[in-house]
Amino acid sequence: MTSSIEQCKQIWCNADTVCFDVDSTLIKDEGLDELAEFCGVGKQVKEWTNKAMGGSMRFRTALEKRLEIIQPTIDQITQFRETQAIRFSDGLEELVELLHERGTKVYLVSGGFRSLIEPAAKLLDIPFNNIYANRLKFFYNGDYAGFDVREPTSDSGGKKLVAEKLKQTCENLVFIGDGATDLEAYPPADLFIGYGGNVVRETVKQKAPWYITDFQDLIQILQDSS
Amino acid sequence: MTSSIEQCKQIWCNADTVCFDVDSTLIKDEGLDELAEFCGVGKQVKEWTNKAMGGSMRFRTALEKRLEIIQPTIDQITQFRETQAIRFSDGLEELVELLHERGTKVYLVSGGFRSLIEPAAKLLDIPFNNIYANRLKFFYNGDYAGFDVREPTSDSGGKKLVAEKLKQTCENLVFIGDGATDLEAYPPADLFIGYGGNVVRETVKQKAPWYITDFQDLIQILQDSS
Repeated sequence: MTSSIEQCKQIWCNADTVCFDVDSTLIKDEGLDELAEFCGVGKQVKEWTNKAMGGSMRFRTALEKRLEIIQPTIDQITQFRETQAIRFSDGLEELVELLHERGTKVYLVSGGFRSLIEPAAKLLDIPFNNIYANRLKFFYNGDYAGFDVREPTSDSGGKKLVAEKLKQTCENLVFIGDGATDLEAYPPADLFIGYGGNVVRETVKQKAPWYITDFQDLIQILQDSS
Repeated sequence: MTSSIEQCKQIWCNADTVCFDVDSTLIKDEGLDELAEFCGVGKQVKEWTNKAMGGSMRFRTALEKRLEIIQPTIDQITQFRETQAIRFSDGLEELVELLHERGTKVYLVSGGFRSLIEPAAKLLDIPFNNIYANRLKFFYNGDYAGFDVREPTSDSGGKKLVAEKLKQTCENLVFIGDGATDLEAYPPADLFIGYGGNVVRETVKQKAPWYITDFQDLIQILQDSS
């Protein structure tokens, strides 16, 4: 565990692998809420999102409940991918580009869905193999058929499992995110950076060894160190 | 339970709902073996099919094992549907047409897969809603993602459950099939007709109240009765 901001900054500069949470961190929006809106059931899903944020609900249950409402078909996902406006958080694109230039591996680790995240990954030049997220399933006729419960990110504690896996092959692992499930990855992550540029969650702000609201802070430190 | 062939024939003539098994009954082939052949893993899958026929293996396990080998993608299923030559059992098309003319409802009840059965149903003018079968699942990228274990036909005893459901809204229910899982539907089915036109399974032949090897027998009786 890291203790001072100076130590945090040092780990950040030496990171060989950086994981970004997606919803409200990489992008300004919540992918599932956006999809629900697109499918005409935004209000009902938002209610479940708020209940889930409340605390005691199991992550997988919250996911199931919302998807049972949305029931997205494969065609709806394709249309959503083609028409959604991806709103990256301020400074995010510059930050990812800088990390890539330095040879730092960038991963996306999300409790959301791979098919909704891929368009953003493509724009950022992040290989699809570097995405850890959930996978929607469909029947042959395109109807919604559930999601893959074997994915670690489909349940509470999933991001911790992903971090454990990544730690097997990296030296300095940094996790960046806005939510409580991101914080779970630290440890085994060597550093957690709380991000409050879109939404500030008080418990995360209090528990994170380092909390920022502007990715420019991270960019600046890397630029100063090189 | 029916006792004499005469009684069987009477129920057959008064049937308002007739269910056909698909593999080796409606058609001459085994759909999953054909698909495996198409995907280049025919031999390995055939070995499991034989093991499953052997007896003690749970139906769902046998299905899982074979699909784990085939791992059909959504594109492979589409190509298979477009290119497979459907070989109906001799006399089957005439029989189904005759049943439809008489206003008899025709159902297909199969431990195989809906997406493989639909092309045959279409040719026979059987509504897709009258198919009880398993459903393959796919990920967004088209990869195989399992099958729906909530379908009754995905496990042993499934055809019995389908027969129970159909009996709620019909008077005289007849099941026609070649295999042991078809025999399980009787009762609640009012009659089971064993069919050995493609493959003769000795236990089915012995236990069936009525056993035929030619659909012409069934056609003839209907024609004589009208």
